[in-house]
Amino acid sequence: MKRLILIRHGQSEWNLQNRFTGWTDIDLTDKGREEARHAGKLIASAGLEPRYCFTSYQKRAIHTLQLALDAMDRDWLPVVKDWHLNERHYGALQGLNKAETAQKYGDEQVHIWRRSYDVEPPLLTPSDDRYPGRDPRYAALSADELPLGESLKDTIARVRPCWEELIEPALRLYGTVVIAAHGNSLRALVMMLNKLTPDQIVNEEIPTGSPRVFTIDDHLAVVGDRYL
Amino acid sequence: MKRLILIRHGQSEWNLQNRFTGWTDIDLTDKGREEARHAGKLIASAGLEPRYCFTSYQKRAIHTLQLALDAMDRDWLPVVKDWHLNERHYGALQGLNKAETAQKYGDEQVHIWRRSYDVEPPLLTPSDDRYPGRDPRYAALSADELPLGESLKDTIARVRPCWEELIEPALRLYGTVVIAAHGNSLRALVMMLNKLTPDQIVNEEIPTGSPRVFTIDDHLAVVGDRYL
Repeated sequence: MKRLILIRHGQSEWNLQNRFTGWTDIDLTDKGREEARHAGKLIASAGLEPRYCFTSYQKRAIHTLQLALDAMDRDWLPVVKDWHLNERHYGALQGLNKAETAQKYGDEQVHIWRRSYDVEPPLLTPSDDRYPGRDPRYAALSADELPLGESLKDTIARVRPCWEELIEPALRLYGTVVIAAHGNSLRALVMMLNKLTPDQIVNEEIPTGSPRVFTIDDHLAVVGDRYL
Repeated sequence: MKRLILIRHGQSEWNLQNRFTGWTDIDLTDKGREEARHAGKLIASAGLEPRYCFTSYQKRAIHTLQLALDAMDRDWLPVVKDWHLNERHYGALQGLNKAETAQKYGDEQVHIWRRSYDVEPPLLTPSDDRYPGRDPRYAALSADELPLGESLKDTIARVRPCWEELIEPALRLYGTVVIAAHGNSLRALVMMLNKLTPDQIVNEEIPTGSPRVFTIDDHLAVVGDRYL
């Protein structure tokens, strides 16, 4: 049996400030760091021995993985960082306070932006300072690949090739794999693993800092799904 | 021009306790962590923009790299961890206090173990708890690959394939590369880069926490060598 362990990063500075984060590269708070160490201890206590790891290009997920691996005394594991595992890009909402945005656009509109499957947020323009093409980590990507704002559906579409081309092969080869990522990129993985419909995935909430362990058979079918 | 930036990890718990460390996986002290962050700030202030990184399988080097990258705001860079970049294996001396070892074997013998080019320390046996084959991170290596104790010459011999097969190609492809490692694995790299003799390399001291920048031309010849 294979094991895929998902960890959603814990509290970040902008969670505290109630701002839309998306691709903004905000770090964990002390509480978020503690959640990450705790997640690592839970994985070690469960007797799981990961052999390969993935995370995003964003430091709140990268640090979560590093702290969890340190708590497991497995700092030496290979870690692949891939922007396809980034959080959903929140377009022109990035940086805005969620309460202020609700006052301006109405609660219902904000609810739609946050909870619908295929509605995009207001998009960035390439002239915006927040345009990801200005960031050296995304400089090698084509304009087609760089999001201006994503629906959950868009996020799932870009997570899929990472699953098929990198994570599935690593799972076959290494058996136990950890992914530290974000609410929506992890939702994308859960949707594929559990074959959920769009209606089901928008209602799926993944708690922070609690490792979720999928048990997967040799045909890559899920036979177990639990939180530690 | 290409840039290769070497960082020797800073103070570890066993540096403080004056013990032979070798492959024992000892963490940095707070001072060592501060040295790592400072190294990252120096690299960023020099306007260098690394694109690829290497480190060893040992947490004092891995954490040095992570903290330096965080100080550069480049947590997202690819990092390859390779046991060939580990510290020299100190055999049966690992864990012993250096002063006590000098009392037992004499200052001259300890000086020879520490400063000669091709003298091995007393070797471990495979039944020793310190035998690296007992460690999950080295479990996939053959008995031939697992050291029982190394001379500096042995360390250089196992760093060489990592240089030729991984670091040189990364330097050609990415231009600016960081390596966070250990006194003796970095000496191995300096010996190859600067074409030093055994007499020269045993006298080469690489200070901790000070990034050393090699400027390298397209034929991979060194045209500059300085500390930041």
